[in-house]
Amino acid sequence: MNEHTYSWHPQPTSLLTDHYELTMLQAALRAGTASRRSVFEVFARRLPHSRRYGVFAGVGRLLEGLEQFRFTDEQLRFLRDTNVVDAATVAYLENFRFTGQIRGYAEGETYFPHSPLLSVESSFAEACVLETFILSVLNYDSAVASAASRMVGAAGGRPCIEMGSRRAHEQAAVAAARAAVVAGFDSTSNLEAGFRYGVKTVGTAAHSFTLLHDTEEQAFRAQLDALGVSTALLVDTYDVERAVRLAVEIAGPDLGGVRLDSGDLVTQASSVRALLDTLGNQHTKITVTSDLDEYAIAALRAAPVDAYGVGTRLVTGSGAPTSSMVYKLVSREGASGTMEPVAKASSGKASVGGEKYALRRRNPQGVATHEMVGVSHLPEDDGDDRPLLVDYVTGGELREGFTGPEAVVRARTRHAESIAELPRAARRLSEGEPVIPTVIEPGTAH
Amino acid sequence: MNEHTYSWHPQPTSLLTDHYELTMLQAALRAGTASRRSVFEVFARRLPHSRRYGVFAGVGRLLEGLEQFRFTDEQLRFLRDTNVVDAATVAYLENFRFTGQIRGYAEGETYFPHSPLLSVESSFAEACVLETFILSVLNYDSAVASAASRMVGAAGGRPCIEMGSRRAHEQAAVAAARAAVVAGFDSTSNLEAGFRYGVKTVGTAAHSFTLLHDTEEQAFRAQLDALGVSTALLVDTYDVERAVRLAVEIAGPDLGGVRLDSGDLVTQASSVRALLDTLGNQHTKITVTSDLDEYAIAALRAAPVDAYGVGTRLVTGSGAPTSSMVYKLVSREGASGTMEPVAKASSGKASVGGEKYALRRRNPQGVATHEMVGVSHLPEDDGDDRPLLVDYVTGGELREGFTGPEAVVRARTRHAESIAELPRAARRLSEGEPVIPTVIEPGTAH
Repeated sequence: MNEHTYSWHPQPTSLLTDHYELTMLQAALRAGTASRRSVFEVFARRLPHSRRYGVFAGVGRLLEGLEQFRFTDEQLRFLRDTNVVDAATVAYLENFRFTGQIRGYAEGETYFPHSPLLSVESSFAEACVLETFILSVLNYDSAVASAASRMVGAAGGRPCIEMGSRRAHEQAAVAAARAAVVAGFDSTSNLEAGFRYGVKTVGTAAHSFTLLHDTEEQAFRAQLDALGVSTALLVDTYDVERAVRLAVEIAGPDLGGVRLDSGDLVTQASSVRALLDTLGNQHTKITVTSDLDEYAIAALRAAPVDAYGVGTRLVTGSGAPTSSMVYKLVSREGASGTMEPVAKASSGKASVGGEKYALRRRNPQGVATHEMVGVSHLPEDDGDDRPLLVDYVTGGELREGFTGPEAVVRARTRHAESIAELPRAARRLSEGEPVIPTVIEPGTAH
Repeated sequence: MNEHTYSWHPQPTSLLTDHYELTMLQAALRAGTASRRSVFEVFARRLPHSRRYGVFAGVGRLLEGLEQFRFTDEQLRFLRDTNVVDAATVAYLENFRFTGQIRGYAEGETYFPHSPLLSVESSFAEACVLETFILSVLNYDSAVASAASRMVGAAGGRPCIEMGSRRAHEQAAVAAARAAVVAGFDSTSNLEAGFRYGVKTVGTAAHSFTLLHDTEEQAFRAQLDALGVSTALLVDTYDVERAVRLAVEIAGPDLGGVRLDSGDLVTQASSVRALLDTLGNQHTKITVTSDLDEYAIAALRAAPVDAYGVGTRLVTGSGAPTSSMVYKLVSREGASGTMEPVAKASSGKASVGGEKYALRRRNPQGVATHEMVGVSHLPEDDGDDRPLLVDYVTGGELREGFTGPEAVVRARTRHAESIAELPRAARRLSEGEPVIPTVIEPGTAH
């Protein structure tokens, strides 16, 4: 991690929301129900693709965005001009500031169906308008982190490098780089992620650099001259074997690495390794970067590969480009002034009313056995359990340490520890059930 | 479209790039090759999922971002502190401004494998550092527009509403809303898209609004009171039939609409339509919004549905969350000072060197028959053909009319016209070949 921090100016997040959040606000303000104390919860009914676990990510970005959730004059003018809402609602939004509580799982934590990942407690008005932004951040970042964690597992200790920026929306790419590092990636190619979050960035050269020069030799010499002998040379622009021989001839035994970006990587890695060794370059590393995902990485386990560069499949969640997290009102003040659990009964989408609390049950050996979720109470710790909820925002005040570069370091550690305590079956890539069951007490998941 | 425009402050886009773009720059500056005149081209080797056509989108956003491609002092400090590049490269970037040419397909245009979608001509240095940003924008926006266009086709004239913000990164959501409208969607729920691009935003209420109130009746009354009788009431929180009867009882025959967000939509839509008609609400519309994609929309063709709200599957590209567009150096100045075509020979990723020009061949009836791509020349117009290339940036100067709300209106029109001229088979949802073949003259696609 880079020890410096840099100031950048995030945009207001207040219009990164659905139109209906503001029309609901208008209707609730008029009906006198906007001030009702409400608890919304974020959870997922299922894991994507029958995976064994999910990874909760994006909290740091969410909290950074919450600080920017203010309506500018220009935005208020837009709401007025276009009649999205009435004058009373615009007046309410002029002074909007979140004053409630946010509590949730630690960023980087593994999760399961019905884990109560985040709860927002405030007036209905305040919690309602945050819905879309909160879900956007968590659904994308968690999708990438969940895919990334499986890739890191498949890599079995070899470093993974995030290189997918060009395959995602340009701002999503920054979030993807951050989420990948949270889930154990070594570094990223995305410079903005380095700038904002202090994560390590890496990169050397693309095919265009070779093509720019009159010969491959000129290109290699130019790169070595500028970046030093520890750089990695891309050897598949024309002919791999010729390029490897040329690279060694020019750079000598201290050449840092070569990169393969095409072809059958298993075969190529083996023949390039053999050739490098024959030429005396036992320490020159091999990075592979072509269309990798967790399955391709696993297939390369026996190949002499030193690092994996992962792009498209990472930033698109390896088949699950979004998480299925929802944000549901589970409890609110009724006409009598007391809090009451609420739940919809919609076909196939029913939810469990009441606030949830959770802990991870562990056996005496420290291995996770159950996700314990209590409705309106914290399940009893049987001695080896681990609490899961962190207070992030209290009375509108953000607790320190959960944003910026610091949050990434913390989340990465949390993720490593959380994975380490799951049963070994968590690392299986095949489809299957969540690696530990969720127990909801009392009541049942639908 | 909203006739007002609003100022917003986009962030600098200059670090939304891969580390290696800047290390290549450093090496080329040092080797004296950074100033070589270069032409990079954006194209896709294939369409995703054996689709019949793709939709080119994001140009307006790309050009807006190009204006912000300047390095701030804080960003330069980051590059220095972290040794991403050397002092000479930082000095070059201090004054970075794109001064070259950008030419490409019109936004909204349909495209096929090897269509030369965008070309960037400038020094190697200038074109190289733009690569990642350009691909991020085009790959995401085109993925969404390509999915959206199929949904619009499946809807057969019924309006489609974009509602996927919560299932995409919060900024990607804005781009998705914009791309959906380019491809023919009627409107979006995303307010920031309305603010930035003038697209129509819509929305009424969610289940949480019903749950906030002590009874469904109170919720419906509150919504009608605030939003008027033309609003759409969400009728599946508890019991659909009861809710429809209640809605009609309270709102009367002028109730604008009801929304169904769960269950078997074909059956539900029919029974709700029958019930509404029986109760005298022939003009109350039915909007459906649960997990729709182009196939689900097609399956609802015979159902009495008035509008489709599409979320997850739209913003994730309906199975193709990114396009496979690449940005390749195809021609550059050699040591002799003349432009020379270049191409890599990598296994499975070979490209065709030389600048490409394109037109859409049409038969005398105006139906598209071929995508004609000429290497180093424009294919000859046989009398009914249509030119495809637009000059966007000349000598670093952006031509007017291709950014902001204006660009969206223009692209939407272009898309509608482009689709109308394709053979009818373009609308088939089944997997298949591109609806028209690409002819590359001379030379062949690899």
